[in-house]
Amino acid sequence: MQKNNNNFALIMAGGVGTRLWPVSRKDFPKQFHDVLGVGESLLQLSYNRLLDVCPEENIYIISNQDYYQLIKEQLPAMTDDQILLEPQLRNTAPCVAYAVHKIAQKNPDANLIVSPADHLILKQDQFKQVALKACEEAAKHNVLITFGITPTRPDTGYGYIEYDRSNHENGVYKVAAFKEKPDLPTAEGFLKAGNFVWNSGIFVWSIDAIKKSFEKYLPEMNALFDKGSKIYYSQEEERFIQQAYDTCINISIDYGILEKAENVYVIPVDFGWTDLGTWKSIDSQHEKDKYGNSLQGTVLAYDTKESFIKVPKGEIAVVQGLENYIVIYDGKALMICQKDQEQMVKKFLGDIKEKGYNEFV
Amino acid sequence: MQKNNNNFALIMAGGVGTRLWPVSRKDFPKQFHDVLGVGESLLQLSYNRLLDVCPEENIYIISNQDYYQLIKEQLPAMTDDQILLEPQLRNTAPCVAYAVHKIAQKNPDANLIVSPADHLILKQDQFKQVALKACEEAAKHNVLITFGITPTRPDTGYGYIEYDRSNHENGVYKVAAFKEKPDLPTAEGFLKAGNFVWNSGIFVWSIDAIKKSFEKYLPEMNALFDKGSKIYYSQEEERFIQQAYDTCINISIDYGILEKAENVYVIPVDFGWTDLGTWKSIDSQHEKDKYGNSLQGTVLAYDTKESFIKVPKGEIAVVQGLENYIVIYDGKALMICQKDQEQMVKKFLGDIKEKGYNEFV
Repeated sequence: MQKNNNNFALIMAGGVGTRLWPVSRKDFPKQFHDVLGVGESLLQLSYNRLLDVCPEENIYIISNQDYYQLIKEQLPAMTDDQILLEPQLRNTAPCVAYAVHKIAQKNPDANLIVSPADHLILKQDQFKQVALKACEEAAKHNVLITFGITPTRPDTGYGYIEYDRSNHENGVYKVAAFKEKPDLPTAEGFLKAGNFVWNSGIFVWSIDAIKKSFEKYLPEMNALFDKGSKIYYSQEEERFIQQAYDTCINISIDYGILEKAENVYVIPVDFGWTDLGTWKSIDSQHEKDKYGNSLQGTVLAYDTKESFIKVPKGEIAVVQGLENYIVIYDGKALMICQKDQEQMVKKFLGDIKEKGYNEFV
Repeated sequence: MQKNNNNFALIMAGGVGTRLWPVSRKDFPKQFHDVLGVGESLLQLSYNRLLDVCPEENIYIISNQDYYQLIKEQLPAMTDDQILLEPQLRNTAPCVAYAVHKIAQKNPDANLIVSPADHLILKQDQFKQVALKACEEAAKHNVLITFGITPTRPDTGYGYIEYDRSNHENGVYKVAAFKEKPDLPTAEGFLKAGNFVWNSGIFVWSIDAIKKSFEKYLPEMNALFDKGSKIYYSQEEERFIQQAYDTCINISIDYGILEKAENVYVIPVDFGWTDLGTWKSIDSQHEKDKYGNSLQGTVLAYDTKESFIKVPKGEIAVVQGLENYIVIYDGKALMICQKDQEQMVKKFLGDIKEKGYNEFV
């Protein structure tokens, strides 16, 4: 399969990635970091991955207006027309509505891949094959396609998609239900059942299909962004979007459309996906030394086991006597936390804000 | 007692304070740091303490030539004549010999207080009284006086001085023996005996008395620096000292003279002294929170006990699940170490050098 000029992509890059504090901060969130030390930020990895599927000029990014400079620095090939700036956080439905109506004006026959900026996909070639196939399917049928990750463990940190084993064609399955993050016994049940996959947050649909869904399930939001049809790609776009975002509701595309629509399908995939949502998930991508440590940067470790230590270039860490700890230093903030207490990062951040140390958030 | 124009002081500020890594580094050693966060560096505290005992122009400092700029910044009142620069580390005997011969040229009747730059004395007024008394005694008698700290615990990190309980006058005791750092049972024996004090490294003597001792115990070194008598305070001094240091042996004043001389006396004192030689000794100067932590800088601690956490201004540390740890961050190096493994700092530094990370030493 070849890339098709009707294939478009929307990279969603508006999040803050709070669980990766202190590396991910409001002024420099996760997706702009080279989290894995591979030489490219997660955003750059996402962009380069999509170049295999879409022409360069068909890749759009949507993010908070505060990150405009970061985006220009990291993706200098992108024109301002391709960079959609949100004046405020309004969850994923407005974000998709904005992009869909803007792209519709450029190409009403577009097939659109929607992808978060801050996930990792290791097997790029497999991603390419699946994405091209999904675009083909989306072009042919009035369907909303999701990518579901074949689960390798009963993870309680992801949402699941249940599909109908008997209703499929060409590896594309009809979705039976979306499931919120489960508890462990439920997740174990999902794994055993075999027809549950992780919701990757990657979607593929034709402009026509998703517009129809907006009309049906979020008609006010659809009307709001449809009004801009003659305004997109003009000087007026920024002011129009400011007003639209002032008015529109805060809702996710999952909750607003996918969980309600009848024409939702899933392609179970296995392309080495992780959302890199927590330090533990990042740690799992690293090779370990013989004591089970992953040491990122210049780190000397003594009597230390099963720990994840990360310091930036130009710095050194010397640690002694740690077992099962996460130690992250990033320029101006240091976090030391037991691995099994990693969920406390949210509390740390809350407390930092409450104490007024906003420069560290 | 009043300060006397014959009173001189020599501040020895050439050390690197390796046990306080990473705060103390070769390019910015301990004595130049405001280690306790009181607003003055240890060097500035030492200088200001001696201003009570000597006229300003009689205070000399000796240090490595690399630290000239730091000294000028921290003690702008000092003239270049008062700043003695060593071209290389040669231990304390050459350092005293240089200063003694230089000061002798200015004032052959001088009484000289020799003091390390990097110790802490909490009770400044008591220091003043003892120092003035010692200068008086030194002026009257051909004696070498040391200050011995009345021990409060069987510390194995200090050298001890044994004095002759029966041989004293005016609170000045004849020294019986110098004792190397003891093991714990020996230190406990010293405390029980009652006539053992910690060697503070602070000495008082007349120029005449110490010159006589150099003549007797280190005659070659004495001759070497005596040759400079017409050169000190001239343009030639630097070149002369360069040559003298190339030749002279590396030996401490304790080993070279004090342990051999017959006229060594000690004044047992109790002026709140600590050498601040280790993180533990610095920690002991801090107030603790109700969990026994001392948190220096902006630190949020969770499930953390008996720990010492220190970060510089403009940084934050969030720590969770530490008990009995030392965590020190200083600009470019982070150290995490169990309190009872603090002696490993020397090993850390050795390993850092061996791996060629010299910028962190």
